[in-house]
Amino acid sequence: MVSHKIENIKLSQKGKNRVDWARQNMPILQSLKRRFSKTLPFREHKISICLHVEAKSAVWVETLMAGGAEVAITGSPGSTQDETAAYMVDKMGVEVFSWRAENYEEHMENARQVLKAGPTIISDNGGDLHFLLGENVDQTQSNSIIGATEETTSGATRLREELPNFNFPTIIINDTMAKRIVENRYGVGISVVDGIMRSTNIMLGGKTVVVIGYGYCGQGIAQRLRGLGAHVTVVDNTPLAQLEAHLEGFKTSTVEKALPNAHFIVTVTGRYHVIQARHFDLMRDGVILCNAGQNQFEMEIDTIYDQAERAREIRPNVEELILPSGKKFFLLARGNSVNLAAGDGNPIEIMDLGLSLQSLSLEFLASRADELVPGPQTVPWEIENSTVKAAISEWVG
Amino acid sequence: MVSHKIENIKLSQKGKNRVDWARQNMPILQSLKRRFSKTLPFREHKISICLHVEAKSAVWVETLMAGGAEVAITGSPGSTQDETAAYMVDKMGVEVFSWRAENYEEHMENARQVLKAGPTIISDNGGDLHFLLGENVDQTQSNSIIGATEETTSGATRLREELPNFNFPTIIINDTMAKRIVENRYGVGISVVDGIMRSTNIMLGGKTVVVIGYGYCGQGIAQRLRGLGAHVTVVDNTPLAQLEAHLEGFKTSTVEKALPNAHFIVTVTGRYHVIQARHFDLMRDGVILCNAGQNQFEMEIDTIYDQAERAREIRPNVEELILPSGKKFFLLARGNSVNLAAGDGNPIEIMDLGLSLQSLSLEFLASRADELVPGPQTVPWEIENSTVKAAISEWVG
Amino acid sequence: MVSHKIENIKLSQKGKNRVDWARQNMPILQSLKRRFSKTLPFREHKISICLHVEAKSAVWVETLMAGGAEVAITGSPGSTQDETAAYMVDKMGVEVFSWRAENYEEHMENARQVLKAGPTIISDNGGDLHFLLGENVDQTQSNSIIGATEETTSGATRLREELPNFNFPTIIINDTMAKRIVENRYGVGISVVDGIMRSTNIMLGGKTVVVIGYGYCGQGIAQRLRGLGAHVTVVDNTPLAQLEAHLEGFKTSTVEKALPNAHFIVTVTGRYHVIQARHFDLMRDGVILCNAGQNQFEMEIDTIYDQAERAREIRPNVEELILPSGKKFFLLARGNSVNLAAGDGNPIEIMDLGLSLQSLSLEFLASRADELVPGPQTVPWEIENSTVKAAISEWVG
Amino acid sequence: MVSHKIENIKLSQKGKNRVDWARQNMPILQSLKRRFSKTLPFREHKISICLHVEAKSAVWVETLMAGGAEVAITGSPGSTQDETAAYMVDKMGVEVFSWRAENYEEHMENARQVLKAGPTIISDNGGDLHFLLGENVDQTQSNSIIGATEETTSGATRLREELPNFNFPTIIINDTMAKRIVENRYGVGISVVDGIMRSTNIMLGGKTVVVIGYGYCGQGIAQRLRGLGAHVTVVDNTPLAQLEAHLEGFKTSTVEKALPNAHFIVTVTGRYHVIQARHFDLMRDGVILCNAGQNQFEMEIDTIYDQAERAREIRPNVEELILPSGKKFFLLARGNSVNLAAGDGNPIEIMDLGLSLQSLSLEFLASRADELVPGPQTVPWEIENSTVKAAISEWVG
Repeated sequence: MVSHKIENIKLSQKGKNRVDWARQNMPILQSLKRRFSKTLPFREHKISICLHVEAKSAVWVETLMAGGAEVAITGSPGSTQDETAAYMVDKMGVEVFSWRAENYEEHMENARQVLKAGPTIISDNGGDLHFLLGENVDQTQSNSIIGATEETTSGATRLREELPNFNFPTIIINDTMAKRIVENRYGVGISVVDGIMRSTNIMLGGKTVVVIGYGYCGQGIAQRLRGLGAHVTVVDNTPLAQLEAHLEGFKTSTVEKALPNAHFIVTVTGRYHVIQARHFDLMRDGVILCNAGQNQFEMEIDTIYDQAERAREIRPNVEELILPSGKKFFLLARGNSVNLAAGDGNPIEIMDLGLSLQSLSLEFLASRADELVPGPQTVPWEIENSTVKAAISEWVG
Repeated sequence: MVSHKIENIKLSQKGKNRVDWARQNMPILQSLKRRFSKTLPFREHKISICLHVEAKSAVWVETLMAGGAEVAITGSPGSTQDETAAYMVDKMGVEVFSWRAENYEEHMENARQVLKAGPTIISDNGGDLHFLLGENVDQTQSNSIIGATEETTSGATRLREELPNFNFPTIIINDTMAKRIVENRYGVGISVVDGIMRSTNIMLGGKTVVVIGYGYCGQGIAQRLRGLGAHVTVVDNTPLAQLEAHLEGFKTSTVEKALPNAHFIVTVTGRYHVIQARHFDLMRDGVILCNAGQNQFEMEIDTIYDQAERAREIRPNVEELILPSGKKFFLLARGNSVNLAAGDGNPIEIMDLGLSLQSLSLEFLASRADELVPGPQTVPWEIENSTVKAAISEWVG
Repeated sequence: MVSHKIENIKLSQKGKNRVDWARQNMPILQSLKRRFSKTLPFREHKISICLHVEAKSAVWVETLMAGGAEVAITGSPGSTQDETAAYMVDKMGVEVFSWRAENYEEHMENARQVLKAGPTIISDNGGDLHFLLGENVDQTQSNSIIGATEETTSGATRLREELPNFNFPTIIINDTMAKRIVENRYGVGISVVDGIMRSTNIMLGGKTVVVIGYGYCGQGIAQRLRGLGAHVTVVDNTPLAQLEAHLEGFKTSTVEKALPNAHFIVTVTGRYHVIQARHFDLMRDGVILCNAGQNQFEMEIDTIYDQAERAREIRPNVEELILPSGKKFFLLARGNSVNLAAGDGNPIEIMDLGLSLQSLSLEFLASRADELVPGPQTVPWEIENSTVKAAISEWVG
Repeated sequence: MVSHKIENIKLSQKGKNRVDWARQNMPILQSLKRRFSKTLPFREHKISICLHVEAKSAVWVETLMAGGAEVAITGSPGSTQDETAAYMVDKMGVEVFSWRAENYEEHMENARQVLKAGPTIISDNGGDLHFLLGENVDQTQSNSIIGATEETTSGATRLREELPNFNFPTIIINDTMAKRIVENRYGVGISVVDGIMRSTNIMLGGKTVVVIGYGYCGQGIAQRLRGLGAHVTVVDNTPLAQLEAHLEGFKTSTVEKALPNAHFIVTVTGRYHVIQARHFDLMRDGVILCNAGQNQFEMEIDTIYDQAERAREIRPNVEELILPSGKKFFLLARGNSVNLAAGDGNPIEIMDLGLSLQSLSLEFLASRADELVPGPQTVPWEIENSTVKAAISEWVG
């Protein structure tokens, strides 16, 4: 049995069903798997991954392993499916270091484990693996790494603005318009309404929902909410984003003016403390808050928990908080991304496209990393274009 | 402790949370409860109920009990929340006969129990209580009953076409345009997409979904699916319904022509065997089927199960069936109403309106049943109008 | 040359083009025409008609004449196409009494002329012909009439509530759900936005438009405006209509609260003085008003014209009015139905269905009027159903 | 009286009304006008313009003249409003060389006239003025010019790929996301449906409309058509554009597969001969074609006219063409941009934003052209941002 640290390996069979279901809805990866099993692009490579440990990721890992890779993976706090982790260890032979209830410190320790596994390529999510490599000052770990990928906007920002330079190339998946449109606008849009509905059983039709942020994710969320009959107000400080929302038919406003009428508030800005403790005075009693951005920090959650007199989980992923004033509000999924933490994340097919971009970028690194300059860079156009064509072939026919 | 037959009374605290959450989103019932607690319209009445034993129903029962009623309740196979049942027995003092895993025979036996409790008024769902009363040939049970309500279309049809006459009035809640528009079109529309999304994690955007039936429920489902980006095809044999769907922008077709392109099929016709075993030859491999009508029988489920070579639950509420031809399909919630069986049923506020119609109809019966002719009849206009006004006051403000 | 009173018979060729264009988009009538030309249901009948004298009506009259009818027709103030009138007289041999600039008194005199033509059947619009028959106290005219049709809601109301009884049956076309859904919701919805856009060249996207009235016509208008990106507020005093609009995603309000934010106001209630002179104090400077109902009287137009200090037509069908306060507003089409007066009325195909209902109702009268009771009555179900089926066959294929 | 060549100066009063109407709906330009009348940025400048000579352009010219400019203008074939041209000469003192019925050669001669007027700055549309300057080999005209603007995509392409280099900067208005989103997506989307509806009176709801091209303009057109109930099929050869349309809920296809079902075809690709003569064999009898791109050449119009056995204008801007096979089709506005040629062009407010971008770019050139490198370049960010903010202030409030 491979090295691992997970919740309970006996959950393996339940994990198998989940992965089977995901697999049959990920035909693009299946096609890559068939090709990789002949060309073996990852022979003699070890890929260390940070990504949500759930069924769709498992199907992706299968694809890489069919191409000859050894794989170690860690997840994120709150999003790990323990049964899928068990299946990956037990039946797939993946080194998994992750469990659902892990906290931030445990998560970072797990990330260290996947780096210790000795990767030649890394695939990062939010920049955590790069961050740890950067701490390793003599670069002993980096020296064996020929290249990397990074999935998210926030990881790209860390790499470009905060982290040290590395002596290998990092391909930023989120730089593609394919990911922004398909995954951010359409995937996130639909999985966020799913997460809200399943956690609350509250009527969205006729409700005033304030969506803060009108980037690709925010556009998708606003459109899908409207499609369910919600009365959507969009808040975005960028003038052109506001004007676009206005012409699209949405009411637009500022945070201060929008909050008093809101039944629901959704943050999706990628920015820090968009909703602050002081804003709670402006809200209705009984308002429901959730975050659809990558990070909990879009709301000033810690202060709010500190101030709350009482808190209880009234439904799974719905917490009732009561402030000293007696005002009550409801927070979904503790401010974590509501689609991942209170749902199953993006729809399976959407991740089939996103993880195919990943797979082809990793294949590209395996064969041509030495031709690339070090540092963050865009996905090659041919990879994006061929992935989109594969999606058309599977989805449109 | 009152008489009862439930899964496990220790689940009571968990049930309390669910009911608390529902209660704060049911302000119309809360307002009726305050009034009933003064006027006590149900003093000296025992109300026997058949309705889904879940949190929203519990809030309704609280309302009736505040008005002086004693209550006995049974549910439906598959939709009972065992924790809510426990709370109702333990903390509310309701006689509950229902558990989630009960089968049809057990359900009917439970229904007999609530009639044996000696009601003066009954509140029926699908006509089961009336059916049992009809079997009791000497009318010993009926004689103590002064009036009844019936929630659904299918119950109304049984009462009007199949069951014997009773010597008391039965008010048909579904006769109101308020229920048809608010609950059937908007409530069912949104809860069905919720049920599909949470059980499958499949992308609805871009998928070809065939909605069979374009009554109020079907209209709502088709609209909400379109609002999520699905490519909807509507099938309805009624010419005007087809024409309406066409002008609304939906592709329309026949069952035979529509099936080969479908990724999803949703039945919502109220009719028998709309999807038959022979239709499976026409379908894509891997199609997902679900039913949003009241009854499983809209698809020829039994024959299909008989024919299937293999069946396994691949995710909760998703069953994979493989036919002898090797063709595979996926059935949600075993063909039971996908919104109730794979979700939480209609949104809470929607049921606040529907159960307020029920409450006022029961109050009307308690005071004026003797003025009414026996047999099925429409909700008095004043009741419908005042309920709609209360909803406007709470929802629009 | 037949008897006639029109603007200018020399416009005949221009009228021919208009009628040719309409004809090729009215296949249902063409099919009836082929049948009628064999069965000659109107042989020995004279049909006197009151309806908008425009190309679509001309195609209908062709249909009746192919069935053996002689026809006399009058129109409505403001909607007559003088070139079509010329073509009908010159090439079709229809007795036409109508011109675009006719006033109300002239219109009524023209209506008297078509009755003097000696009809055996009449086809009325708004009840004007019935009104004149009712004035003819000795019933000399009525005695030759075996039956009638009436197109509109307002005509039906006059017949049922205000006019004397007649000794022949009158079939009310507007009683059909086919007309209400197809023509009122979808036809009027689209032709009203057409009329507004072509008369103003103003951006509807992002504009606050207040739609007063949420019946079938109002639903259609609100939906189409939203489809163009407008921010729609619905006003309707009927509670259920308001609730339906709210759940459909529209902001709802009262006249008083809605007016101050409106860029556009559209009335479509069928009621008298919904917008009153006193309301102008509440409106923005520069607001645009129009009416989509049958009658100008939904706004208190006369008082407003009296009060206006200045009025000028600043674009065709756009009048600028300046009140003593200096406040300015813009009135489209002098408050007449904006789709007819500032556009071409309902889309051609929509009237193909509506006028086929008329044709079959007239055929029914010609053969079976003596079996019917006198007075207003509904279109026979078979006629409605076969017309809807014909529309499906032509439109859906 | 200034130098001019127009249809009829007596139309001046009618032109005044049109310009008055446009002016009150262009508040951003009015605000610039107030500022310019104090700062006089164009004192001692002569601006020669090529742009549609219609009311919105006249309001823009007023703005420039308030800033001290002398102005000469020419328009485009088919889009000139002769009454507005008369008003500009008669009351505004603009040198106008343009009339509605001018042909291409006359248009180019008129363009020469505005260059002969001796501009210091030019404002171009489609690159015609630059083209003529390029022919003037000794650069005598160019030498007096300090800078230019260009409005369109196609003009930008000519400047960047085909025309010689000039010794002055040319600011490309279409490079801004503000123009692309506001004008191309929302403005063109709505004006195209307006143009189609007013020229045809045909029902869009329920019709199959094929939109070829899914750039910003095509997105807008597809959305607005869907909003009116049309069944839209999108054709775009770019994989990501097709995938985006698919996920947005549109059927996507190829030209060959889409044409046989089309009731309407709209081209908006900017490419040459997207619809070719050979495609007509694939189309339905009676199909309606129109172009929403800048140029007629998106359809192979000349060949089609050559092949047609008969052609007649059956309604204004609707031409019926009959091919030797007997197949009939209808062409709107002779293949010119249907929104401009069969309607009033983009909504007034939309052009208020677009022409404000122009005005500020011209002001920038007047003061700082000598700091800029020669050649085509993007609008400065501050100009775009301040214009968008002004639009928010006026439109959202």
